[in-house]
Amino acid sequence: MTGSPLLNELIEALRCLPGVGSKSAQRMAFHLLERDRERGLRLAGALEEALRRVGHCTRCRNFSETPVCALCASTSRDRHVLCVVESAADLTAIEQATGYRGQYFVLLGRLSPLDGLGPQELGLSLLAERLAEGEIEEMIIATNPTVEGEATAHYLAELARAGGVRPTRLAHGVPLGGELEYVDRGTLAHAFGSRQLLG
Amino acid sequence: MTGSPLLNELIEALRCLPGVGSKSAQRMAFHLLERDRERGLRLAGALEEALRRVGHCTRCRNFSETPVCALCASTSRDRHVLCVVESAADLTAIEQATGYRGQYFVLLGRLSPLDGLGPQELGLSLLAERLAEGEIEEMIIATNPTVEGEATAHYLAELARAGGVRPTRLAHGVPLGGELEYVDRGTLAHAFGSRQLLG
Ligand SMILES: [Zn+2]
Ligand SMILES: [Zn+2]
Repeated sequence: MTGSPLLNELIEALRCLPGVGSKSAQRMAFHLLERDRERGLRLAGALEEALRRVGHCTRCRNFSETPVCALCASTSRDRHVLCVVESAADLTAIEQATGYRGQYFVLLGRLSPLDGLGPQELGLSLLAERLAEGEIEEMIIATNPTVEGEATAHYLAELARAGGVRPTRLAHGVPLGGELEYVDRGTLAHAFGSRQLLG
Repeated sequence: MTGSPLLNELIEALRCLPGVGSKSAQRMAFHLLERDRERGLRLAGALEEALRRVGHCTRCRNFSETPVCALCASTSRDRHVLCVVESAADLTAIEQATGYRGQYFVLLGRLSPLDGLGPQELGLSLLAERLAEGEIEEMIIATNPTVEGEATAHYLAELARAGGVRPTRLAHGVPLGGELEYVDRGTLAHAFGSRQLLG
């Protein structure tokens, strides 16, 4: 295709990236070869290191190359609040969007019996142990507002109450800056029903 | 940001790819870690190999990891037609869109005195030697239809005529000001097939 078998392999290999088709893969390969070999080689090294060495934190199941991740190891974070998320991507979104300074627990999925995902796969015994330590006072349940995410939230709330911990859930509503016209009906109905008195 | 320094480095490193911002870089990193470590490692290897080993063909200046590229070395391609392009990306676009089975010459740029790009930087003495071999009968000038590309085409046409070679140019159909790399295949194939003899 290009006259260089190694370049053809690179173009093909770039397609493992989500959202990258053959045209973008070509553009990326040519860009790196023509203008940015040094950063491209750094990318090769970063991929190799991360994909070989990053596993999961033994305490919160977040991605980590050490037994305990940087967030769990930090002494500057509130040890009385635990936020439970489905994925490390959700954890990152919360870190970036909010001022949250507590702990996390990553389920690496959601309850989904048909896919063979039960309490064991989500590490819920590890979570129960964590609650039993007695430090956590509030569990913020930040699973996604899907059918499975809601079922998971329900299960987690029971687990929290059983451990004497206060379960909370992210508020639902119209997204900030969103137009009513484009908000889905369920969200709109919920937001309408949960309307609040203006000060 | 994520609790894993190696993952943070990977996300940062992915931003060397054109069109990849911090949000896509995150999505890519999580995707590879969660679902596709094996293909991600293959990508690391392909990057390393291509960026360290791919140089330029000594005959046509196309990308190549061997002294002479696969296209120049092929015995099944017409040795009487030479297509001159600005970049390897343009060569690839022509290979994919048209049925062209001749030879190529890659300028790795276009005449642009203000950027210090003159005949020497574009390898035009190598091109002149090639014409002097006497095998080439037609030179298809496929520089981009930009001001600099047209000036380059003009210069190349003179070079061809001086070497007793018939210069042709891609037919109209390629949008003025457009870059070959981004032209849709049908247009490119049509323009290629309708190339015209330069007065
Ligand atoms: Zn952790
Ligand atoms: Zn070649």
